[in-house]
Amino acid sequence: MSKMTENAAFSQNKVLTIDTMNPNVKKMEYAVRGPIVQRAMQIEKELREGVKKPFTEVIKANIGDAHAMGQQPITFFRQVLALCSYPELLNDNMFPEDAKSRARRILQACGGNSLGAYSASQGIDCVRQDVARYIERRDGGVPCDPDNVYLTTGASNGIVTMLQLLVCGEGASKTGVMISIPQYPLYSAALAELGAVQVNYYLNEDKCWSMDLSELERSLAEARKHCNPKALCVINPGNPTGQVQSRQCIEDVIRFAAKEHLFLMADEVYQDNVYAEGCQFHSFKKVLFELGPQYSNTVELASFHSTSKCYMGECGFRGGYMEVINMDPEVKAQLTKLVSIRLCAPVPGQALMDLVVNSPQPGEPSYTTFMKERTATLSLLAEKAKLTEEILNTVPGITCNPVQGAMYSFPNISLPQKAIKEAKALGQVPDMFYCMKMLEETGICLVPGSGFGQKDGTYHFRMTILPPTDKLKILLAKVKEFHLRFTQQYS
Amino acid sequence: MSKMTENAAFSQNKVLTIDTMNPNVKKMEYAVRGPIVQRAMQIEKELREGVKKPFTEVIKANIGDAHAMGQQPITFFRQVLALCSYPELLNDNMFPEDAKSRARRILQACGGNSLGAYSASQGIDCVRQDVARYIERRDGGVPCDPDNVYLTTGASNGIVTMLQLLVCGEGASKTGVMISIPQYPLYSAALAELGAVQVNYYLNEDKCWSMDLSELERSLAEARKHCNPKALCVINPGNPTGQVQSRQCIEDVIRFAAKEHLFLMADEVYQDNVYAEGCQFHSFKKVLFELGPQYSNTVELASFHSTSKCYMGECGFRGGYMEVINMDPEVKAQLTKLVSIRLCAPVPGQALMDLVVNSPQPGEPSYTTFMKERTATLSLLAEKAKLTEEILNTVPGITCNPVQGAMYSFPNISLPQKAIKEAKALGQVPDMFYCMKMLEETGICLVPGSGFGQKDGTYHFRMTILPPTDKLKILLAKVKEFHLRFTQQYS
Repeated sequence: MSKMTENAAFSQNKVLTIDTMNPNVKKMEYAVRGPIVQRAMQIEKELREGVKKPFTEVIKANIGDAHAMGQQPITFFRQVLALCSYPELLNDNMFPEDAKSRARRILQACGGNSLGAYSASQGIDCVRQDVARYIERRDGGVPCDPDNVYLTTGASNGIVTMLQLLVCGEGASKTGVMISIPQYPLYSAALAELGAVQVNYYLNEDKCWSMDLSELERSLAEARKHCNPKALCVINPGNPTGQVQSRQCIEDVIRFAAKEHLFLMADEVYQDNVYAEGCQFHSFKKVLFELGPQYSNTVELASFHSTSKCYMGECGFRGGYMEVINMDPEVKAQLTKLVSIRLCAPVPGQALMDLVVNSPQPGEPSYTTFMKERTATLSLLAEKAKLTEEILNTVPGITCNPVQGAMYSFPNISLPQKAIKEAKALGQVPDMFYCMKMLEETGICLVPGSGFGQKDGTYHFRMTILPPTDKLKILLAKVKEFHLRFTQQYS
Repeated sequence: MSKMTENAAFSQNKVLTIDTMNPNVKKMEYAVRGPIVQRAMQIEKELREGVKKPFTEVIKANIGDAHAMGQQPITFFRQVLALCSYPELLNDNMFPEDAKSRARRILQACGGNSLGAYSASQGIDCVRQDVARYIERRDGGVPCDPDNVYLTTGASNGIVTMLQLLVCGEGASKTGVMISIPQYPLYSAALAELGAVQVNYYLNEDKCWSMDLSELERSLAEARKHCNPKALCVINPGNPTGQVQSRQCIEDVIRFAAKEHLFLMADEVYQDNVYAEGCQFHSFKKVLFELGPQYSNTVELASFHSTSKCYMGECGFRGGYMEVINMDPEVKAQLTKLVSIRLCAPVPGQALMDLVVNSPQPGEPSYTTFMKERTATLSLLAEKAKLTEEILNTVPGITCNPVQGAMYSFPNISLPQKAIKEAKALGQVPDMFYCMKMLEETGICLVPGSGFGQKDGTYHFRMTILPPTDKLKILLAKVKEFHLRFTQQYS
């Protein structure tokens, strides 16, 4: 019996097979850690084993993982986390007083004064209070009730939880959720998982990936023919597209949601990552309240933040929060019950979230260092955003919108017809074919645009702007070289 | 317009209401953090505000949260976590060398040498290797492939993920999952969430909560009339029931699963919590392999462990792992994809899991202290298990099985007919009525047996054995007093 037949026979006896497993899980896709990244990891292993390649290292620009790309953690945050982990250090004189007082405050709010106790389901009380005060400061005084704040396991967990609450129905009454295209594939994956209908609206690439009201209307009208659209998701600053939506645009979206009776979900994890001149971050919450009580008393909104992005880049801690506005009290009780079953978000991540929203203040001993580190990180990102846009736009066949914010560029790439044909003959999506070839020839790991969604007939890739400047320059030079060679090869 | 009418009118305009939300979420229940615990928190607030009560503090014995009950963390674990959080401390001479070398090893395995980087989706490689070696040692040399190990966000997350993979179908072909009654309500909640069929099998209270083969057969046969039972879940040592299953029983269960074509899920988070003489923890994996290749090559098994219980009690870190045996390779690829969408388990929890499976060894500087702390914690738990059983059994109308393991006793309570009638008149489950009354009169917070499931007409409560010994004695004395008073009042 051949190996394959053996496997098949063997597999038939299993309880859990590809044919008997949850079909929704099969439909889920997540390009950011998809086949191209798996191949990149294989190549790294081959390099370690001495296999000869046309390059000596894999440069990963596939995921917004700042520390992995060399960004340093904020000293103050890590000092407090060390103090909380091992409170004996509170007796040591090596830590500044503000770090110690933050640690004492967090520990006092923990059961048994330990990060090892479960927190309340919704999160540690004093952390939620600090989050509320942060939101109020950020939004120029718009009030925030700590009871509306839920601490989460990264933003992803909050987003999936909210979608889970929203989804119901079958057939034409099945819940539809509007998401931007291109999108961050957590959304499509979560909707597949929940068996909800993904309703696409396209961002306008020609207008720097802005949201067009007419496109929202088109998308919604079409969706209403076959499902029950209930929610509209916006990622601002944008992932994978790096745009920062204007205040006007956000206002339009809120009016649209109010008029069309849609629940709003605002993914605002890149709120500090704004680089382009003239661009500014406006939270949906703030604009909602500026539109007056007609909106602020009615429109249902959930917004999400995280410790993973901005100047912190602390992805590994899985810290985050969501704020819910105008949520029905009965539904809120259900939400609290739902999160209680997972017991609580990781407590070290909650502590870190607290530090982000309650960072050193002027006059405190750690303030100067904190501000220096924060500013340096954000300035460097702004520099790299500019560099990426400029160099990519020098390549014939690559067009790159300004990276106004977030951590990614999503350039449009022209692929020769011959390449498209060859890809299709191989059963591959053309930009996957392109990115895989780039990986094999240059060691650069990007994510094909098809993993995020794009207009038919257009091709893109997403690359992070996170590699250290010298490496980023090498990466961009290699991308340029590869693109020219690829274009020539298939012309 | 009255407040209520106003709310109703208001609510009708919401997108997300109790009527339009996900119906599966509504069905979920989690007694461990249910109404009685919410009331306990209210009472604590009332006490702080100076409201007079017949007691001065609420004693919580509702949840297995060891640190909140005063258990101290293991020094070595916290030293390494502090070093990993703030690696500057590696230059300090206050930490033992073995703590430093563990920290260095963990950091080297992290992207950018930072706990702040995402790990690989399945977990940090070297941690999975350490887990595999731990399992091999624990199981007397039965091999463990690190590729079969997934690091999780506590055990809960692993259990829900496995159930999610298993569930499919509609109507009579809908997936059924067999769970013990009494059960830990994560299981019933997850099955409700996934829309799967909960198939109950009853533990034998008269035989110290053991599993009876005949009961498994009865349960399965009945379930097959209306669903497609695919998996069998076992919690050993038991939650909420505190039993430790015998080797023979585990063997019987494995043979049953093999014969009946069931996927086995073994929740073994209390594997170090074994107190009773003559009792021993046997992992399902080990027994499976001892049964020979006929079983070890075929039976599909997922087993779960966590940093939250045993002598560690580090619930807040949400660390855990699962090992999958004989899983179809295609399904395993789907599992890896599924976990990749959540990016990774919290990295501090992964680091802590590593320390649990790679603890100080003889000859290392921290060994003596580590062993002293570990032994002290487990001995104290053993003492409290005994104390709880003994005192409860002195109360007429309370019958308590030995607390052989885990962290709970689940005594049977006789309730007078008059009390049952009064509870029903109030629309309450009788043991909820009993526990709520106990909370109001004594400040003791237990969870009614109905939250875990029990044979019709029997009543129980779950209490943890975690309070400090002096407090536990007070608690038990108060329970006794209350039970006598309650019985008299309703006789």
